[in-house]
Amino acid sequence: MSGRDEVISFLKSNDDFLIATHISPEGDALGSAIALAMALGSMGKKAAVYDRDPVPEFYSFLPGAGGVLHSTSPLETGSMCLVLVDCNTPERAALDGRAFRGSAVIDHHETEGPFGDAKWIDPRAPATGLMIYSLIRDLGVTVTKEMATNLYAAIAVDTGTFRYRNVTPEALRVAADLAELGANPGLIAENIYESWSTNRFHLLCMTLGTLEISDGIAIITVTQEMMKKTGTSPIDTENFSNFPRLIRDIRVAAFFRETEDGAWKVSMRSKGDINLARIAEKFQGGGHKSAAGYNIRADIRTAKRRLIEAVRTA
Amino acid sequence: MSGRDEVISFLKSNDDFLIATHISPEGDALGSAIALAMALGSMGKKAAVYDRDPVPEFYSFLPGAGGVLHSTSPLETGSMCLVLVDCNTPERAALDGRAFRGSAVIDHHETEGPFGDAKWIDPRAPATGLMIYSLIRDLGVTVTKEMATNLYAAIAVDTGTFRYRNVTPEALRVAADLAELGANPGLIAENIYESWSTNRFHLLCMTLGTLEISDGIAIITVTQEMMKKTGTSPIDTENFSNFPRLIRDIRVAAFFRETEDGAWKVSMRSKGDINLARIAEKFQGGGHKSAAGYNIRADIRTAKRRLIEAVRTA
Repeated sequence: MSGRDEVISFLKSNDDFLIATHISPEGDALGSAIALAMALGSMGKKAAVYDRDPVPEFYSFLPGAGGVLHSTSPLETGSMCLVLVDCNTPERAALDGRAFRGSAVIDHHETEGPFGDAKWIDPRAPATGLMIYSLIRDLGVTVTKEMATNLYAAIAVDTGTFRYRNVTPEALRVAADLAELGANPGLIAENIYESWSTNRFHLLCMTLGTLEISDGIAIITVTQEMMKKTGTSPIDTENFSNFPRLIRDIRVAAFFRETEDGAWKVSMRSKGDINLARIAEKFQGGGHKSAAGYNIRADIRTAKRRLIEAVRTA
Repeated sequence: MSGRDEVISFLKSNDDFLIATHISPEGDALGSAIALAMALGSMGKKAAVYDRDPVPEFYSFLPGAGGVLHSTSPLETGSMCLVLVDCNTPERAALDGRAFRGSAVIDHHETEGPFGDAKWIDPRAPATGLMIYSLIRDLGVTVTKEMATNLYAAIAVDTGTFRYRNVTPEALRVAADLAELGANPGLIAENIYESWSTNRFHLLCMTLGTLEISDGIAIITVTQEMMKKTGTSPIDTENFSNFPRLIRDIRVAAFFRETEDGAWKVSMRSKGDINLARIAEKFQGGGHKSAAGYNIRADIRTAKRRLIEAVRTA
């Protein structure tokens, strides 16, 4: 049996699910998890969605986002089946050490853990949302407008609204199906990409001004001081890593965000063929070929130099 | 006979075409015109593409872009049939006063002129590229990879890579077809949106710093001085008008570019339901509901105030 068939059989043969996704969730994580829970619900099964972290405000328009649980304490997980979506280890979902009746994994990340009774990991899938859509259809569930909106958002986010190299004819075709089923492409894009506070816009201006380019790597930086000055928070920097991609002949766009004094979260986006998941792994991080990240504790000059070296020897 | 059928019959029954599009061409104009010329060429007909202005560098990757004519002087247009694409008056194509054997119009702009023996204007079409794709299929032509790339670029540009309110299931479905036929979505997006010079990036930083918001209208401004300081030219400001759309509760994003002392080119993008074509017409400009523009001669304060008044009374 293929991993995909195992997952379908797992979903069919169980009745009480916790659909969990990774900490700091983005559109593909949330949209995929919520749509799957809705589909299982419409089959008469119990399915709760869990994410340790809050839903970012610009994803609050997703139907069902208000129902996402952020604590497992009221749940008796021992009698539930865990489905990890858009991640493949309990650690990524902040669920390590927790016992479940059984577990399945549906993910498209390159960096793979050994977890899961049933497991479908396809790094070639542009978005986990595409995998969930195909599962829902095979489960014989009617895709509602609410599911379509979640799945469209999932696919849109992980393909940069169809701008990244991972876009396939199938991604576009499924997006067309979902639009037909009631997802509103323009409205979804406005919610995700065009609902910035003015403060966030000012932080962007300030951040773009920090641009440095070295060896085809374009780096922009946000310090705690800059966020303080503009009255913004880490979630406001979502998507900033994409901006240096605008520049031609850039191989890697990197965004350094200061998390505490002397510690940085690094988000990378590639253009062309470099595998960023491999680079992130050098720093104990992970991700996809064209989008990956890691944390590093160092002064900013050292942190930047180490990235440049890692890319040079990639 | 519908306008669409008239155009098909016009294309079938003639053999020597000049496919012309509007001055300051963008992706929908160029991609549509080139793809149509290629299709007519594959039917054994003669078809040249004309645009008065040069092809912007970031569209030079379009197959066939190098063959676009920028002068009509070597042509004996009196024996040729004119096809206006993505515009509907000879003036918009800088062809006024020129004689042709016959003429057709294929366009999706709101502001319509009386020109054309055969005429298909559909303001509901998200892009002229979609109209051309449907014509090419009805003409029985096999869509090549080169045509697909041009048409995909056309649709991508006029839908903001599927982010605008004009995105339909059909636009996504045709994009999927074109990707299947050989268009490379990621590569096309990189060429159009991510091939900026570093100077252009610096001009953007400077421009975003000019943001002013009034009555839900976000305005950014580029002066001749700013372009001089960054070593950039007007074409480098393409797409700048989209950036203020990032901010929530904005109804209109406007970009003022100084064309000469005391004269401004204004590009507008809307969010929501306001009809910008109607606002542009108040200033003798034109465009679409969600993207339009005009020229104005005034000091910058007066120019901004007049726009704010025009939106208020819209």
